This record gives sequence, structure tokens and C-alpha cells, in this order.
Amino acid sequence: MDTWRTAIIDAGPDHIRVRGHDVLELMRDATFTDLIFLLHHDRLPSPAERRLMDAILIGVADHGAGAPSCAAARLAASGNRQSPSAAVAAGILTIGDEHGGAGSACMEMIAAGLSRARRDGVSFDAEAARTVDEATRAKTRLPGFGHRVHTTIDPRVDVLFTLAADSGLAGDGIRFARALEAAVRERIKPIPLNIDGALAAILIDLGLPSMVGKLLFIVGRVAGLSAEVLEEYTREKPMRIKFPVEYDGVPPRSNGK
Amino acid sequence: MDTWRTAIIDAGPDHIRVRGHDVLELMRDATFTDLIFLLHHDRLPSPAERRLMDAILIGVADHGAGAPSCAAARLAASGNRQSPSAAVAAGILTIGDEHGGAGSACMEMIAAGLSRARRDGVSFDAEAARTVDEATRAKTRLPGFGHRVHTTIDPRVDVLFTLAADSGLAGDGIRFARALEAAVRERIKPIPLNIDGALAAILIDLGLPSMVGKLLFIVGRVAGLSAEVLEEYTREKPMRIKFPVEYDGVPPRSNGK
Amino acid sequence: MDTWRTAIIDAGPDHIRVRGHDVLELMRDATFTDLIFLLHHDRLPSPAERRLMDAILIGVADHGAGAPSCAAARLAASGNRQSPSAAVAAGILTIGDEHGGAGSACMEMIAAGLSRARRDGVSFDAEAARTVDEATRAKTRLPGFGHRVHTTIDPRVDVLFTLAADSGLAGDGIRFARALEAAVRERIKPIPLNIDGALAAILIDLGLPSMVGKLLFIVGRVAGLSAEVLEEYTREKPMRIKFPVEYDGVPPRSNGK
Amino acid sequence: MDTWRTAIIDAGPDHIRVRGHDVLELMRDATFTDLIFLLHHDRLPSPAERRLMDAILIGVADHGAGAPSCAAARLAASGNRQSPSAAVAAGILTIGDEHGGAGSACMEMIAAGLSRARRDGVSFDAEAARTVDEATRAKTRLPGFGHRVHTTIDPRVDVLFTLAADSGLAGDGIRFARALEAAVRERIKPIPLNIDGALAAILIDLGLPSMVGKLLFIVGRVAGLSAEVLEEYTREKPMRIKFPVEYDGVPPRSNGK
Repeated sequence: MDTWRTAIIDAGPDHIRVRGHDVLELMRDATFTDLIFLLHHDRLPSPAERRLMDAILIGVADHGAGAPSCAAARLAASGNRQSPSAAVAAGILTIGDEHGGAGSACMEMIAAGLSRARRDGVSFDAEAARTVDEATRAKTRLPGFGHRVHTTIDPRVDVLFTLAADSGLAGDGIRFARALEAAVRERIKPIPLNIDGALAAILIDLGLPSMVGKLLFIVGRVAGLSAEVLEEYTREKPMRIKFPVEYDGVPPRSNGK
Repeated sequence: MDTWRTAIIDAGPDHIRVRGHDVLELMRDATFTDLIFLLHHDRLPSPAERRLMDAILIGVADHGAGAPSCAAARLAASGNRQSPSAAVAAGILTIGDEHGGAGSACMEMIAAGLSRARRDGVSFDAEAARTVDEATRAKTRLPGFGHRVHTTIDPRVDVLFTLAADSGLAGDGIRFARALEAAVRERIKPIPLNIDGALAAILIDLGLPSMVGKLLFIVGRVAGLSAEVLEEYTREKPMRIKFPVEYDGVPPRSNGK
Repeated sequence: MDTWRTAIIDAGPDHIRVRGHDVLELMRDATFTDLIFLLHHDRLPSPAERRLMDAILIGVADHGAGAPSCAAARLAASGNRQSPSAAVAAGILTIGDEHGGAGSACMEMIAAGLSRARRDGVSFDAEAARTVDEATRAKTRLPGFGHRVHTTIDPRVDVLFTLAADSGLAGDGIRFARALEAAVRERIKPIPLNIDGALAAILIDLGLPSMVGKLLFIVGRVAGLSAEVLEEYTREKPMRIKFPVEYDGVPPRSNGK
Repeated sequence: MDTWRTAIIDAGPDHIRVRGHDVLELMRDATFTDLIFLLHHDRLPSPAERRLMDAILIGVADHGAGAPSCAAARLAASGNRQSPSAAVAAGILTIGDEHGGAGSACMEMIAAGLSRARRDGVSFDAEAARTVDEATRAKTRLPGFGHRVHTTIDPRVDVLFTLAADSGLAGDGIRFARALEAAVRERIKPIPLNIDGALAAILIDLGLPSMVGKLLFIVGRVAGLSAEVLEEYTREKPMRIKFPVEYDGVPPRSNGK
């Protein structure tokens, strides 16, 4: 088999380095959030960048046992007590564009908007209106907008954007996201940015690629899934979960043999 | 369906609290590592506890793309480009007692040893010798000992134990782990504690349940898996990975029809 | 990397053989169930063995969308519409000793009972009584007994055992399982063998290793999970599933900063 | 929580029915392949349809331990010996548009081609040429074509198409797939249909929805994954797998603290 190439870890009997940094030094001095930033970027974060990353990871870690990710993890913890890994993995598998993963699509939408605004020399407000109108015509949802619980405002969004503004890290990503939110309100109805959208805007401003929108949600959510699995193992009996199901298919029939 | 009970998250339209703490406050002031500690314990960590947790999470995050967890994540990223979640989950599924998950078994071994030493009024050295001899007779491996790369010493262990000692957090867990290491050296041969063993000793001293030994490895490793998946998606073509396989089963035969 | 050895598939540009059988011949003449038997055994099944395997695989394929495996698959299909593989995998991850996987443990229990009965020259009834009493003393559940819906009799069990008897394949595995069922009834209370237990008894009589008890459940259940995932994708909107959760942890508190 | 609706299983204490058919009758009379067809269609198959389904499921079940799906399953079986489910699931997670899952995209391509040919009243040859030219212009790969081992012909394709022709089930799906193959040969270079493409053409002719292209590959492949996992558990030591990795990232650097 061909040798695999990697620019992440350089490990041997005498050294383990993460993107060039000695892991022992990092263990002594850095935070886990520093390492997460370093693993997905090509450098360690500034204190302000670290604060934003911490806020994002905390914001997405857990939103209650009823979310699909937590519920799937608990179902696996309920039926399969042999492997906590299996339960955590089952939770992660529910994360996609529809649950937790909208950050990536939102980053792509913001990046495309910024690129077109610059190319065409139009204002963010005009470009945001164009983006919203295109989604309306195509009958597609705008990723990063709307939440089934936080229908008027997601309070985590304001905290993130205030942290970004206070530390001087708010850039075009956040400005365009706010322009989108205004355009949605004017042209459709008030639908608030959700945490995926706020995360997307900030990650654009931090210079990270769009796939990180989904990956950081996973990294943060795993902390919550782990705690949910621990609670299910330690507090509940196996196989406690029953779902009410109603059959509405074809009536009884014979196989004709 | 019955309503599920949980002591982790209390979320509603106007509040999200993690074990009683307002998530907005945590986003402004706490670190992701604080949150991980809070989710698995019943309180926030002290600065010294946070430092140890950061060191553990950094220490386990990634040890190179050739580890089973990273390799499985890359295989899934190679064959299934539709879902980064699927790739991260595939990596997590390789984590068990044999890879990354020995921390839980080691915590149980240490806890049993401490409990027996106290019950019988014997020294940690005597109890450690008994534990090692029992494993020798039963022909079982001691969880938390040995590493296929770091065969004489795992440098991450010293960093963790030094951090614990310097901050006054080294307790009976670490003392018993060191006693075990000495007993192994005397009665079998020098086999160093590995990072799972060090993590186990520290988590015992932090008062966490044994399942956390496996779960924290998962939480830390996900940061590395996420970066490995990102690299595979962005740097490599799909389906690049081929394995050399040699067939040594029965020779060709007919199904007799 | 070392070349991997395998006795299952021999594949090259000009041939693909499964345990020595040309896959093209199998595609023309054999059934999928033949192939499943061949993959897990060292030969193709007789017609009677094929009939039993078909009955087992059909019996475990699906028991309704409310089972943990189906529910987890639907949750993943609900949140992650990018990867049907992820949804099927989430369902599989719920399968363990507690859900669907009891067949393996039951096979080990039966194998141990048969071995002890032969060694000690006691009847199956006496040995079954000993097995039940040991479980009672150890306060462990007997794997393969009891079902939360089919509380008095699991009708699939009779079908399987009748098929085995009619084809002359009922052996000591089934005899010992029936002895266990009688001993449970006399010494505890009537608890019927469930489908995992019936499957276990038959697989013992077919000469398969105990791990196949869990694996065959997975192979059969995947057919059902696949259909459940298809229904969720095609019939339901994403993120339709909400769980009722009640918080009963510590009251609100400040992080003291 | 709302009651879930389903048209697949109707199960109660006294009955289990699959799309209206009593599961006990099916266990006595039907094959597992019949059940797979029934679960994904709205009826049982004819003998000719059953033969084709058997051939497809056998054809995709396993192609050697070096395929990404098998390799990932073995990695999980190597590091996590607590849960065969986890190992099988890890294998499934590698299945996507790039590995095993091209059948769905190929079904969509064939369905679109058939629909356009009928709408515009053009021949399949003309429509196939248009499809190939569009893919050439868009620089996209044609799903269902090409294989890294079977570069000139995939022998499983001929077996499937001959079975379909001999039983009178070859329809427009197969005709259009052959027209595509000819158009590829004339306009690009000879690239053979692979098993995903053949499966796609047949499933179109059987009237199944495109998602089944990916799902049936999963259902068939699970039989192989199960056997691979069994072999890894029973024949190999844990953690045997090492990958050669070469670091080519940034040189060592300090974190500047």
C-alpha cells in the first residue's frame, strides 16, 4: 500500500508534533480549544479567536436530550451496553444539513455572496436581497435561519456576535449574515439567524473552510453526546425506550402459496 | 411515549442551562474544557482541574493518521463524500478496550485496588503486587500499560503526572498507578504506563466514574478525527485507498449444480 | 503495511471467488441466503438448512418502527439526508446484548450447558435446572428469554422449531433450549423463549460459532432498517421528530464569575 | 410525542405483518430475498424477479477485504472487540456515491434519460449521446461506469443482464444503460458498466425508486462485512493493523509561550 501523506501529525518514538507544535508543550500550556483551532487552521488562535471558538463549542455542545443527535445516542446506549463508542457514533450520524450541519451550507452561501458583491461592486444589502430572492424563486430554505424552539430570536447568536464585535473580530462574514437577516425580514418574514448561521458567519471571518461549519458542530456536540450516554448508562435500565407507532399501510393479505 | 428525564440540559424558548448554569454566561466566560468537565461532573473545574483536563484532551486528540481511528475515518471519507459525520463516526467506532478505551478498564482496576488496600489495610505496593500477580495468573493484560510505538516510556504520561503533582491534585489514583508500574517492572518486565493509564489515574483523582475513561478519549479524539477527515476531503481523491490482501482459504470448487 | 490474509474472498481481474466458489456461478444458481450461509460457514447449505436460515433472517428483519434500531435509523434519516448509509449504520449501532444481540450470549449458554451435561453425564433437564439456578443466584437474566411485546409466547419461535423438526435438523441445541424453557417455568415463572433464543438454538445445531448469533440478527435487520430509512426519506419531512424531555437536575446557579 | 406512521410493519402481541403479509407464513414459505423485495416494493417478487434480486445481492456482497468497506469494518473489529455491531456499522459508513453507492446516481441518470427521450421523441442512442456529451462538458463522471480492478469488463454485469434477458425482465433501463455504454465507447473511450450501473439498470426495470440503488448495495454488502468481522475477531489479534504515514507539513515550531 502507498504511504499516506499528512500535514497534521508527525509522530515517532521520541516526538509527537501537531502542525509543527510539540504536543508536550501544548499539554502544558495550551487549551483544548487552542488545539482544535490549530488542528483545523495552520496556527494557534489569538486570545480573542480562542474566546470565540470556546463560545461556539459551548453553544453547540448540547441543547437537550430530545434533539435527534442525543435521542439516537440514547437509543444506542439503551440497546447496546457493550460500547459507549457505538452510542456516541449513533448520535453523530444524525448530524447533517438538516440537524446541526447547516453551518457548512451557510458558509458557502455567505462566501458566494461576498464574492459576488465584490465582483459586481454592489452593497451587501443589495447582494443579500438577491440571495434571498433567488432562494425564494428556487423554493429552497436559507441555511442557518430558523429554529424550532427559538422562533423569534436565538439568544446564543447575540452572545457570539457581541463577543466578535467586542474583540474586533467581526468582519464581512458577520456583516453579510446580518444583511441576510434584514433581507429575510423585509422580503419574507422575520426569521432569526440560528446558531449554525452565527457560527458560519464567524468561521468565515476566522478564515476557515466551509466544511468546518459541520465539523465544529460535531466536535462541540460530542461533549454533550458523551454526557447523555453516561446518563443513559448510569441512570436508566436497558431497553427502556418504546415508540408509539401506527400502521397505515395495506390491509392483511396472503402470499398466495 | 414516556417523557424522558434528564439532569443535564434544561432548555426552553427563553433559557438553556447546563447542569444549572446559563449557557450564555458560559459562552461569555468559560472554556470548552470547563463545559466538558461540567457535563461529566456536577460542577465547574478549578483552574488546576481545568489545566489537567486540557492536558488530557490534548494528549489523546491525535497520534497520527495511521492509528485505527484515523484510518477508519479516512476510509469513510474516501468512499462516502456525502457526510463528514459518517467519517467521524467510523473513526469513533474503532475505539474500544483495545484502542483508546483502556482508560475505563484501568480506572476499574485502580478503583478495585484502592478499595481492597483500604479494606485489608495493606500498602499500595503490596496491593499492586497482588493485582499484577492476579493478572499474570489469569493471563490477562493490564489495561493502561504498553504502547506499540512508545515502548519504553510514553512522554505524555510524565507531563500529565507532573502537572497533577505541581497543582496539588495528585492523589491515590496516581500513587496506585505508579505502584502498579513498579510492580509490573519487578514481577514481569518494564512496561510503561501509557496515556490511557495516566488518564485513568488522574480521572480517579478527579472523582469521575470509570466510563469517563473511555468517553473522554472519544471527546478528545474527535478533534483529531475531524481534522483528518477535513484533510482527506480537501487533499485526496475519493477511493484512493487500496489494501494488499492475500487469499489463503480453500481452493476453487464448484457448487455442484 | 503487511499484506492482510483472508480465507473469504479471492478476487482478481479475471475471477471473484467466495470461499472457493465462483461468484458468477453463485449469481446464476444460488440464493442470497445460500451466500450468507457460505460466508459464515465453510460450505453451501442443504435445502433444509437454507429453509431454516431464510426463516431466521425473515423473522428478525423488522418488528416495527418503534424498536430502538428502527427508531435510531429514522432519527438519522431525519437529521442527515445526505447519507442513507449513516442512517442504516445508526440503526445497527443500537444492536447489542440488550437489543437483538442476545443470540450470541444464548449460544454460549447453550454450548456451555451441553458441554457440562456431556462431561458430567447428567440429563439436559438436570443441567438446565442447574443453569437456571446459577442465573438466579447471580441475579443475571437468561439471554434469549422474554420479550416486551410477546410476553406469553413468541409465535416466531414455534415456526422456527417446527421447521427444524420437520426437516430433521433439530438437535441438542433445540433440545437444551426447550429444557431451559421448562426449567425457567418450574423454577421462576413462565417466560417464553424469544426469537434470539430460538435463533441461538438453531445456530448451535447448524454448527455456527456464537458470534454469528449477533451477526445474523444484524444481517437480517439491515433489510428492515433499509426499508425504514427509505420510508422516512420519502414520506416524512426532515427534523420532524421531537422528544418530550423533563429536566430534574440541580436548580439554576451562577458560575460565580 | 406524535405517534409515528408506517406502512411497513404492523405488529402486536398476536400478529406481525410485513406490508400486509403474515410474517409466520413468510418464514415458512418465502426466501429472505422475497422479504427484501417486499420491504422495498409493495408486493412479493415473481420467480424471475427473485432470481435477479438474488444475483444482485450476491454480486455486491463482498469483493475482498481490501475494499474500503471491509477495511473499515476490520479496523473497528481490531480496536473495539466489544461490539460487532460497531464494526459492521463502520464498514457501512464508507458506502457513498464513490464506493458502492453509485447505483442511486446511475438510476437517476437513466430515469432522466428515459424521460427526456420519451418527451422529445428521440432514440435511446441519441439521448445517450446527449447524456454523455453533457457529462463531458460538465467534467463530471458518469455514475455506474468504471472499476479500479475490472478495467475492461466487469463479468458480473453480463451475468446480470443475461439473467434479465433470459427471464424477459430486460426493459428500457437495461436498453438505455447499454446505449450509454456504447456512447461512452464512441465519444470518450471504452469504459465498462460496473456492477453499480448494472444494478441501477435492473432496478429501474423492476420499478424501484433511485434510493434503493444505494440501499440494496448496503443490504448485500452487510453479508460480506459480517463475515469479514467474524474472521477478524476469530483469526487476528487486536490492534494488528498499522498504516505507513509520512508527514509533509510545516517543520517543528514553538508555540511562543
